[in-house]
Amino acid sequence: MTDWYVENYRDEMTYGIAVKERIFDSQSDFQRVEIFEAVRFGRTLVIDGIFMTSERDEFLYHEMIVHPALCTAKSIARVLIIGGGDGGTAREVLRHPEVEKVLMVEIDGMVVDVCKKYMPALGAWDDPRLEVRIADGIAYMLDNDDPPWDVIILDGTDPVGPGEGLFNAAFYRTVKERLAPGGVFALQSESPILDDVFFEIQDTLREIFGHVHPYFGPVPLYSAGVWSWTYATDDADPMAIVDERATRVEAHSKTYNREMHRAAFALPQYAKKRPG
Amino acid sequence: MTDWYVENYRDEMTYGIAVKERIFDSQSDFQRVEIFEAVRFGRTLVIDGIFMTSERDEFLYHEMIVHPALCTAKSIARVLIIGGGDGGTAREVLRHPEVEKVLMVEIDGMVVDVCKKYMPALGAWDDPRLEVRIADGIAYMLDNDDPPWDVIILDGTDPVGPGEGLFNAAFYRTVKERLAPGGVFALQSESPILDDVFFEIQDTLREIFGHVHPYFGPVPLYSAGVWSWTYATDDADPMAIVDERATRVEAHSKTYNREMHRAAFALPQYAKKRPG
Repeated sequence: MTDWYVENYRDEMTYGIAVKERIFDSQSDFQRVEIFEAVRFGRTLVIDGIFMTSERDEFLYHEMIVHPALCTAKSIARVLIIGGGDGGTAREVLRHPEVEKVLMVEIDGMVVDVCKKYMPALGAWDDPRLEVRIADGIAYMLDNDDPPWDVIILDGTDPVGPGEGLFNAAFYRTVKERLAPGGVFALQSESPILDDVFFEIQDTLREIFGHVHPYFGPVPLYSAGVWSWTYATDDADPMAIVDERATRVEAHSKTYNREMHRAAFALPQYAKKRPG
Repeated sequence: MTDWYVENYRDEMTYGIAVKERIFDSQSDFQRVEIFEAVRFGRTLVIDGIFMTSERDEFLYHEMIVHPALCTAKSIARVLIIGGGDGGTAREVLRHPEVEKVLMVEIDGMVVDVCKKYMPALGAWDDPRLEVRIADGIAYMLDNDDPPWDVIILDGTDPVGPGEGLFNAAFYRTVKERLAPGGVFALQSESPILDDVFFEIQDTLREIFGHVHPYFGPVPLYSAGVWSWTYATDDADPMAIVDERATRVEAHSKTYNREMHRAAFALPQYAKKRPG
């Protein structure tokens, strides 16, 4: 008998993965955290019943949330990650030797602990440039004396539960204030075809940033066919790829390359305006 | 109680859609044909337990199998479709006023009949340029006196069941022989990340055609995150978009535009070589 773990989207769609072994299941202070060994996806992280990432397909998400920003920001010495508790985003950031300091502010220590223990390949936890702080990202943004950041990455869950406050104009404004000149704010911005949240995020970002560029890619574990991230900036250019940085990334990446970088920013007709 | 229809991929993944009403279910001479009214996807066609297309997301598949070829082939007066029984591919082809004749050779008359009846929006069945012939596409290709075709589109099911013989060198060779100079062969070529079939199709096409260009896009109903089509030719250029044709398509399309056309051909690192 196959053991299925099934995610249910609004009682409209389900997505299930066959599970070899249920490895971890606990309620943290914020959310339910589960880890499975899946037949197809390897070790898989699930939060509050929603698939987050897996060993097999995590590169499709982590390379794409990181490298468009990291290959184009004016400087990439200082990078702030809000969320990102599984470690994959920090790992991709740290592939750039120009990065001197990465601060990850993750609200849920349990996510970091279990990913370190059960999905160690996702992280680069021993890199001395990485500081992990278990704290509320919103509170951190409102009250800190850190110098500005060259790139700020918001790698959060969906805009429900602890992630909700990370998807509004007040939070985006604190991000903009902490960004260095030539800096980039990159965030996961939900599926462009699943519902209207994608369009709401774009509208809100446009109130704050001079240039807002959504971009797209597949993430099989998110059963929508296509996922989006957004590149928001006042003065960086998402097409101004620094070849030296991209060449280094391409030596190890599984999806990202310069062609894919440029292609990801192509907007389908349905994304050019909010559906009626 | 929600009524779920669930597709099971190799006992590794499932994809389910909530069904409002089960409308049609019958065994044809070739396969089991079902139509549902789904909560999210509208009318949905399922063949042998595999989701084929739905009213809501069909544009993502049909626009992408058709317009890269139709916007770049030297002439598009004569277009042959093998398969395509739901009518969506022919409908997109017929949007081009330069098209004079479309022949659809579909093996399963039941698919055509039920799609005409229950999913009429997918087709342009009354267009006088369209001829539908219920016949075996392989037999047709081997024995006909029709003049060469400017574009041949293979819009088949997965390479199992009646679709199996459409995915081999012998069939591709008959396609090449029937193609006019400057012609293009466009086909659905499975998911590039689900298994190795995608790579096998590419290898086989490369034995026959001088230029083989896979391209990618999302199809939510195919639970793999990303789907592929392939543009095979001896003497056409997938980047030589005829602006007049594309402009007309963009006036009605929901995903296709010139940006998306060019972007779809970007190859992720994992698709540049077969995974080890």
